[in-house]
Amino acid sequence: MKSVIAIDVGGTTMKGGLVAEDGRLLHEERRPTPRADGPERVIAEISRFAAGLQALAASPVAVGLAVPGLVTATHAVYSAAIGWRDVPKAAFTATELPVALGHDVRAAGEAELAFGGGDGEVLYLPIGTGIAGAVVLGGVPYGGAGGWAGQIGHIPVRPDGLACSCGQRGCLGAYASASAVARAYGVESAARVVEAAAAGEPRAVRIWEQAVEALAVALATYTLLLDPRRIVIGGGLSLAGEHLLAPLRERLAARLTFRAAPELAASTLGTRAGLLGAGLLGWRYIAAVTT
Amino acid sequence: MKSVIAIDVGGTTMKGGLVAEDGRLLHEERRPTPRADGPERVIAEISRFAAGLQALAASPVAVGLAVPGLVTATHAVYSAAIGWRDVPKAAFTATELPVALGHDVRAAGEAELAFGGGDGEVLYLPIGTGIAGAVVLGGVPYGGAGGWAGQIGHIPVRPDGLACSCGQRGCLGAYASASAVARAYGVESAARVVEAAAAGEPRAVRIWEQAVEALAVALATYTLLLDPRRIVIGGGLSLAGEHLLAPLRERLAARLTFRAAPELAASTLGTRAGLLGAGLLGWRYIAAVTT
Repeated sequence: MKSVIAIDVGGTTMKGGLVAEDGRLLHEERRPTPRADGPERVIAEISRFAAGLQALAASPVAVGLAVPGLVTATHAVYSAAIGWRDVPKAAFTATELPVALGHDVRAAGEAELAFGGGDGEVLYLPIGTGIAGAVVLGGVPYGGAGGWAGQIGHIPVRPDGLACSCGQRGCLGAYASASAVARAYGVESAARVVEAAAAGEPRAVRIWEQAVEALAVALATYTLLLDPRRIVIGGGLSLAGEHLLAPLRERLAARLTFRAAPELAASTLGTRAGLLGAGLLGWRYIAAVTT
Repeated sequence: MKSVIAIDVGGTTMKGGLVAEDGRLLHEERRPTPRADGPERVIAEISRFAAGLQALAASPVAVGLAVPGLVTATHAVYSAAIGWRDVPKAAFTATELPVALGHDVRAAGEAELAFGGGDGEVLYLPIGTGIAGAVVLGGVPYGGAGGWAGQIGHIPVRPDGLACSCGQRGCLGAYASASAVARAYGVESAARVVEAAAAGEPRAVRIWEQAVEALAVALATYTLLLDPRRIVIGGGLSLAGEHLLAPLRERLAARLTFRAAPELAASTLGTRAGLLGAGLLGWRYIAAVTT
């Protein structure tokens, strides 16, 4: 069966798979992102991952690569999480297949639109190592003047607050990304903090409340600017379910006086949206070059 | 000559005029908004203003009414600046002419688009008694799911900061609206604060810096979310010119690490954009009902 070799490069985990044209995942595996070893090592590992997936594919037609940060169709321009700058797409694989490069979160947003039912006026917000948003307006992801819209992870929710890897202070991601939440508590995974907070451990409660409040400030800001119908949280942190959504609904409503809050839900695609989106990137690239 | 009776209801001043179909202002006058006397008094004054303008018009074809806050085509839903709730449009005038009701800032944004050359991906931001934005995407004002987009004056730039008339804390408007700047310095007009700050008076410098910094936080947020090509400042505060734009450009750039700032300019329509927009509202209403 024809498939796209799809890789979703996250800050801690790379999700790879083979994606059929109808969006079915024919194969799926995960590898750690060796970002502590520097961007060159991450690029080499992506290339190795793609080669391994290609060896498994019966009839691969393209590679779809979803990466974080600022991305064009030809270059991974910048990522605070990984530390690369201006990487041309050809550097990511040694394959002879066509390669489609795209933004991880916009790709995930496209997958939500195609497979998750998130149309209309929606913010799709995956929260993992970093936070970015897919701004969906009238059912179409909106890229802005230069394709760089949706950088909600770096909006200043506490203008003189915590330092962020991007060089600014007080960014949403410095409080509410899964990695920031885990780091603040001194553990590997944000899931541990969610558990400890649910059990009432005071330090975990404080860290979690701070993360939820930072998200409430950011979502109130988004709501006031863009009046979405719906906000869909995805990524690793969305697995916290109502531990996240219930207090976030309450705090978001409290931050809005003269208008109602939009609907708030967890993604039905869970942590697979980026991978499915990378598959879509590949399939759409093929469709564009062959028609 | 045919004209629309146009009124732009601001928090301190109502601008009224007769607007020809090509956007020419055939007549213009200003009256204070008696908001200290309560919303009923403001509504009565709007009605009187419209009747006065109608008496001057040779062939009036409609009334165009631009008001602040949350607005639908049939109701002024809410305004923190004026204090009204759910006023039906018929309540604003006793005229037998057709009445078109709209949002002051979106109307001003439409006037910028039609007469000021602000197309593409633009934020149009009039700063007066309050602050709201016209979000222009792909050359078209964007209203959001329910028409309530652009409420940038109430985004939380200092989440635990100054109290705002909307009931929240730390709203942009509480720091950077012309009325907030004037009030903080204890004068009637923000122009006095701009002058005093330019002359180096320490308290004025501090208030002005705080206003500019709050604007920089809000515009960095907008830029990261929506990647505009251009931001156009209008309203009374835009008359400060480079006293506003030069430090704001600097602070906005400083709040953005991994991307360039969009172009920042003052509106060429000055404080007349809302009035011209009210005129457009009337002309478009006529065009829609007669075609």
